[in-house]
Amino acid sequence: MASNSFGEILRMTSFGESHGFGVGVVLDGVPARLELAVEDFLPALARRRPGQSEISSARREEDRPEIIAGVFEGRTTGAPVAILVANHDQRSADYEHLRDAPRPGHADQTQAAKYGHRDHRGGGRSSGRETIARVLAGVVAGKILPPATRIMGHALIVGQLEARRFDPAEIERNPMRCADPDLAGPMVELVRSLKEEGDSIGGVIEIVVENPPANLGDPTFGKLKARLADAVLSVGAVTGFAYGAGFETATMRGSRYVADSSHFGGILGGISTGETIRFRAAIKPTSSIGDLARKGRHDPCIVPRVIPVLEAMTGFVLADCLLMQRALGQP
Amino acid sequence: MASNSFGEILRMTSFGESHGFGVGVVLDGVPARLELAVEDFLPALARRRPGQSEISSARREEDRPEIIAGVFEGRTTGAPVAILVANHDQRSADYEHLRDAPRPGHADQTQAAKYGHRDHRGGGRSSGRETIARVLAGVVAGKILPPATRIMGHALIVGQLEARRFDPAEIERNPMRCADPDLAGPMVELVRSLKEEGDSIGGVIEIVVENPPANLGDPTFGKLKARLADAVLSVGAVTGFAYGAGFETATMRGSRYVADSSHFGGILGGISTGETIRFRAAIKPTSSIGDLARKGRHDPCIVPRVIPVLEAMTGFVLADCLLMQRALGQP
Amino acid sequence: MASNSFGEILRMTSFGESHGFGVGVVLDGVPARLELAVEDFLPALARRRPGQSEISSARREEDRPEIIAGVFEGRTTGAPVAILVANHDQRSADYEHLRDAPRPGHADQTQAAKYGHRDHRGGGRSSGRETIARVLAGVVAGKILPPATRIMGHALIVGQLEARRFDPAEIERNPMRCADPDLAGPMVELVRSLKEEGDSIGGVIEIVVENPPANLGDPTFGKLKARLADAVLSVGAVTGFAYGAGFETATMRGSRYVADSSHFGGILGGISTGETIRFRAAIKPTSSIGDLARKGRHDPCIVPRVIPVLEAMTGFVLADCLLMQRALGQP
Amino acid sequence: MASNSFGEILRMTSFGESHGFGVGVVLDGVPARLELAVEDFLPALARRRPGQSEISSARREEDRPEIIAGVFEGRTTGAPVAILVANHDQRSADYEHLRDAPRPGHADQTQAAKYGHRDHRGGGRSSGRETIARVLAGVVAGKILPPATRIMGHALIVGQLEARRFDPAEIERNPMRCADPDLAGPMVELVRSLKEEGDSIGGVIEIVVENPPANLGDPTFGKLKARLADAVLSVGAVTGFAYGAGFETATMRGSRYVADSSHFGGILGGISTGETIRFRAAIKPTSSIGDLARKGRHDPCIVPRVIPVLEAMTGFVLADCLLMQRALGQP
Repeated sequence: MASNSFGEILRMTSFGESHGFGVGVVLDGVPARLELAVEDFLPALARRRPGQSEISSARREEDRPEIIAGVFEGRTTGAPVAILVANHDQRSADYEHLRDAPRPGHADQTQAAKYGHRDHRGGGRSSGRETIARVLAGVVAGKILPPATRIMGHALIVGQLEARRFDPAEIERNPMRCADPDLAGPMVELVRSLKEEGDSIGGVIEIVVENPPANLGDPTFGKLKARLADAVLSVGAVTGFAYGAGFETATMRGSRYVADSSHFGGILGGISTGETIRFRAAIKPTSSIGDLARKGRHDPCIVPRVIPVLEAMTGFVLADCLLMQRALGQP
Repeated sequence: MASNSFGEILRMTSFGESHGFGVGVVLDGVPARLELAVEDFLPALARRRPGQSEISSARREEDRPEIIAGVFEGRTTGAPVAILVANHDQRSADYEHLRDAPRPGHADQTQAAKYGHRDHRGGGRSSGRETIARVLAGVVAGKILPPATRIMGHALIVGQLEARRFDPAEIERNPMRCADPDLAGPMVELVRSLKEEGDSIGGVIEIVVENPPANLGDPTFGKLKARLADAVLSVGAVTGFAYGAGFETATMRGSRYVADSSHFGGILGGISTGETIRFRAAIKPTSSIGDLARKGRHDPCIVPRVIPVLEAMTGFVLADCLLMQRALGQP
Repeated sequence: MASNSFGEILRMTSFGESHGFGVGVVLDGVPARLELAVEDFLPALARRRPGQSEISSARREEDRPEIIAGVFEGRTTGAPVAILVANHDQRSADYEHLRDAPRPGHADQTQAAKYGHRDHRGGGRSSGRETIARVLAGVVAGKILPPATRIMGHALIVGQLEARRFDPAEIERNPMRCADPDLAGPMVELVRSLKEEGDSIGGVIEIVVENPPANLGDPTFGKLKARLADAVLSVGAVTGFAYGAGFETATMRGSRYVADSSHFGGILGGISTGETIRFRAAIKPTSSIGDLARKGRHDPCIVPRVIPVLEAMTGFVLADCLLMQRALGQP
Repeated sequence: MASNSFGEILRMTSFGESHGFGVGVVLDGVPARLELAVEDFLPALARRRPGQSEISSARREEDRPEIIAGVFEGRTTGAPVAILVANHDQRSADYEHLRDAPRPGHADQTQAAKYGHRDHRGGGRSSGRETIARVLAGVVAGKILPPATRIMGHALIVGQLEARRFDPAEIERNPMRCADPDLAGPMVELVRSLKEEGDSIGGVIEIVVENPPANLGDPTFGKLKARLADAVLSVGAVTGFAYGAGFETATMRGSRYVADSSHFGGILGGISTGETIRFRAAIKPTSSIGDLARKGRHDPCIVPRVIPVLEAMTGFVLADCLLMQRALGQP
C-alpha cells in the first residue's frame, strides 16, 4: 500500500500540501556515509521552481530545504533522511472563490469523490508542489549512482515543434530546456503567444541516461521499463511513456527492429544493458486556461518544469535497482 | 522486492519456466466465497495460446490448469489460490543449438549478465509462457470486479494499418482481434505475407474498460495510470503506454484538452472517474526472424496473443485497487 | 524493507534523532474525515514524557507536536498525516565526553559497526525519544478502532514484585502505572532506592485489550500474535513477548489449557476471537547505571514510560488489521 | 499485505492445505548459482515429519519434495524457486464427523468467522502441515548463510522438566530433541504416559545460533529481535518469544544485566553483534486430547517437531537480513 511511498530498498515517503505548512520527504534505505548538505538540493529545486522565466508561472516559491533528520556532521547516518520545504507564498485567499467550484480537468473532482471532501486551495496533494519531494529524493539518489551516470531531460516536442538535434550544453541555455538550438527560440515564442491567448500546450520530454549501470531491473515484475513507467506516470502531468523505439515499434518490422540496438532503449528483457537508456514521456497541456492562465499564476507549458522531476524519478529508480542488485547480484 | 510478485492487497506470485515442469501462480488476498473452477480459466487460456490460427506460432500448448490450493467445495477459502499449468510440448532439443549462441534482441543476454548463467531453452522466465500466470490471475481478479465492468482489448494498429471503428462483437471473429471489420482482413493478410518473408511486425493494442468502478487509484504514488503503466510494461512485448489522449496531448492546447472528457481516459488526478477507461500499449515486433520465424515456432505478430494478457493485467490492477478502496474508502 | 516503517495498510514512517532537530512520523493509509487536532496527542505524550515523577528521568521534554500535513479544517484528508515534535532540551554537550567511549549494553556499538560511524549524542535513532513517533501514531490509530475497544497497559512485575489485582482506575494514580493498589507503593519504593544506589531494574508490562474487534489477523503469516510480537519487540527495551498463558503453557497439560479460554489470550489460529486480548512484554533494566544514573538523566525503571508506547503499538496493529479486514473480510 | 508471504528481499510464499493436493512454497529473491537438489530437503523434512517415534503422531507422511521451478542444471537461476510436496495420507474421512463440530482451542472457529466457511478436514491452512513450506524455505536460506553459522534448536523445557546441560551431539539421539542426556529419558517417559492418558503437554524450545553474521537487523523497525519474534510467533504452536535473558530481565538489576553480554542474546540495539544468538519459544500443549489423542493421530508433545520449523524460520530471517545488509551495508 503506502500510496505516498515509492521504491523498494531506497524508499521515499512524500507528504505535505501546496497550501499548508509545506512539503517534505522521508528517505529510507539511504546508505550511510554519503556526503549531504542543504546546498546539494538547491540547483535541482531552482530548476523545478516556478517563476524562472517569463514563460513560466509568476508565483515565486523560495524553496529552502531543511534537512531535519538522518545527517550528522555532513554525512548520512543510515537513519531515514527527512527534508522539509516550508510554503511561503501560499495566498490561500486566491483560491477562496474556488471553494465550491471544482475545476474541469483537475484532480479536485475525483479527490472529492474518493475522500468525501475537497481541498480547494490549489490542488492539495495533487498540486505540482508535491513534486518538490521527488526532486529532493532524486538528489539523494544521485549520490548512490556511479559518478559517470548522467541523467539528462529535454523538451523534445512542444505542440507541433520537434527538436531534431541533441546538444546537452544547449538545454539550460533556454527556458524551454530544448536541446536543439534551432528550435528553442520558436518553442519559447509559441508558449509566449499561448500565454497571451490564455491557453496552454503539451509536449514530449525525452530522458537520456548516459553510462547507466548494467543489470538493473528484474525479468518478470520489476522490469526496469515497468519501474520507469510507474515512476514517470506517477507525475500528474504525464499521459504516456515509451522507451527505445516506443510507439514507433508498432509500425516496425522485426528485421529492422533488431538491426539497431538503439531501438531497445538500453533495456533488454527488462534489464539494463549498460548502453544509453532513452525514453519519452507525453505531457498534457495544463488545465488552467482562460483568465486564470492570463493572470499568470500557472504555466502555459509545464514541460520545462517537469523535466527535473522526471530526471529525479529516473535517478531514484536507477539507484533503487542498484541497491537491489547489490543484494542479489553476482559479486 | 519480490520481483516475481505484483499487486498490493490482491497479490500474484508467478513462477515456472517455459521448458521445465510448467508455470504457475499463487494468488494471495483473494476474498473468500468466490466461485472458482478449472473451467473458468479455459476461455482466457485458449485466447492466449499459440496455434490458434495460421498466423500464430504452430506450437501447440495444451494449457490444462490445475487448482492445487485455496478452493474447497467450489469456492475460494481465503487461503492462497495456487494454480499450475504443466508444460507438455517442451522440445528442449529444438533449443540445444542455442546453448552458446545468445539471440540478438532477446532477454538471454541481460539475464546471462545479471545471473551469471543462461537458460538457452527458449527464454526461461522471459518466455511468453510466463504470461499464463498473468492470464490465470486475471480470471480470479475478474470475479472481484463488479459484473458490469467489461474489459476489452483489440488490435488498434498493426504496421501501417490502423482500425477506425470499434465493434466489440467483431474482435473474436478474426485472428488479429481487430475490432474494425474493414481492417481485420488486411491485417491478417499483412501478417501472413510477413510470415512467408520470415519477418515480423509490431502494433498497438487498445484496452477499453466499460463501467469501471470509480475512486480507484491514489493521488500521489499508486495513481491508477501509474499502476496500469507498471502492469502493462511488465509484459515483455510492450514498449509504451499512453492513456486517454496519450501522446497526442503533446500537440494539444489546453482549451481543446479540457473540452472533451474522453481525453482524460477515465482517470483524473490518478483516480478513476467511473467513465470508460481507455489506454494504449505499443507492441514491438518479435525478435525471432529469419529461418526461425519461417519454421513457424514463433508468432510473426504477437499482438493478438498479448491482448488477453493485457486484459488480465488490467483486471488485476482494477481488482487490487477496488480492495484497497474497500479498506480506506468512504462507506 | 523500509526499516523505519511499520504497518501494511495503515503505515507509519518514523524519523528523527534525539539530539537533532526533533522526531516525527508520517502516517499513510489514514482514512479521510477523522477528526484530528494537536490536543489529541497531548495526553499520550505526557504519559510517555520523562520527568513525570521523582522516579523518572529529570530531563524535561516539552513535547509539542505540530501537525504539518494531512489535516484540513480539523479533519484528516486521506493524504499522509505528518507530525513533528521538535527537540528542546538537547544538551549535546552532556554527551561530548562519550564521543570516543561507546557505552556497554547500548546500541552505540552495533550501530557503529553497521554504519561505519557513531552518533555519540544519546543514542541517535536508538534513543527512547524515537518512541514519540509511535505514541503519535497510536493516537491516530485509536481513532480508527471502535469506541468500545479499550487498550490498557500496566506494570505487572517490577523486580520481585508482582501485581495480583487489576484495577484499571488505579493505573494512573501511581507513578509506576501499577494496577494493584497494594503493590504500587512498594514498587515506587524499590525504584527510589535503586536510583539512590545508581542501579536500575526491569519488569513486565501487561497489555489488556477489552472489546477488540473480532477477525483481526491472518492464519499463516501476519497472525495477530506475530504482528503484536513484531510491534512490541520493535521497542528497544523489550526482551520478550507472551500472549494468553504464554510461557506458562510450557508446563501446562492440554486438558487444562483448553478448559479455560482465557489461556488463548483472545487469539485463536492467529485471529482475534473478540474476547479480551492479553499479552505480556518483558522489559530489561536500563543500561545507564552508576554515576550516570545517579545524575538523574536516566530512568532507573523504564516500565511506566514504556507502557504508553506499547499501548500505542498495540492500537496501531489492531487498526491496521481492521483496515485489512475491511478490504478482504465478509461484509 | 500478502499474508501468506514472509521476508523482504528473500521472500517465501506458502500455499496448500493439509487435505487437498499438497503444500508448497515459492521463494523469491534467491541468489543465482546456489547448488540445490531435492536431496537437500530430505533431512529437514524427515525431522519435521510425524511418525518419527513412538511418542509422535502415528500418521506417516512421505514428504517427497519436487522442485518445479527456479533450478536448472543443479543450480538456482535467480528465478523464483518453487517446491511442492504432495499429500498422500489424507484420510479426509477421518475428519468427516467434524464437519459440523468445531474443535475447542482450534483455529477452526476463528477461520469460520473470518471467512464465512470452515474446512473441517484437519485444519486446512492452520494444520501443522503448512510448516513444510517453512522447512523447505529454511533449507534454501541455509545456503545463503556463511558455512560457519550453525542453527540448533533443542527441547529446553517439557512440563516441569528443564534441561540443565547443552550437548549438541545429544539432540538427535533422543526423540524429544533434548540436549541434556540426563533429562532426555524422563522427558520421553513423561510424554509417553500423557499419551496413554489422552492428554498433552507444552514446553520451551531454545534456539542457539553459533557464529551468526554481525550487523543483521535494523535499529528502528526490523530489529533482528522483532523479525525473529514475528517469524517464531507465525508458527501456530508458539505462545511466547524471549531472547537473551528474556523474561528474567524483569527481575534483574541493570548492574547485573550489563555485566554479562550473554544477557543480550547476541543482539544489541536490534542488530546482531556476531556473538551467539540465543532465544526461547514457548510451545503450547496440543489441543487434541481425549479419544483423539489416544487414537494416535496427534502428538502429545509437539516440541520436537516444532524444533526444525523454528530452526528454518531463524535461518530464513538471518538470510533475509544478510541480503539486506549486502544492499545497504558498508562494503
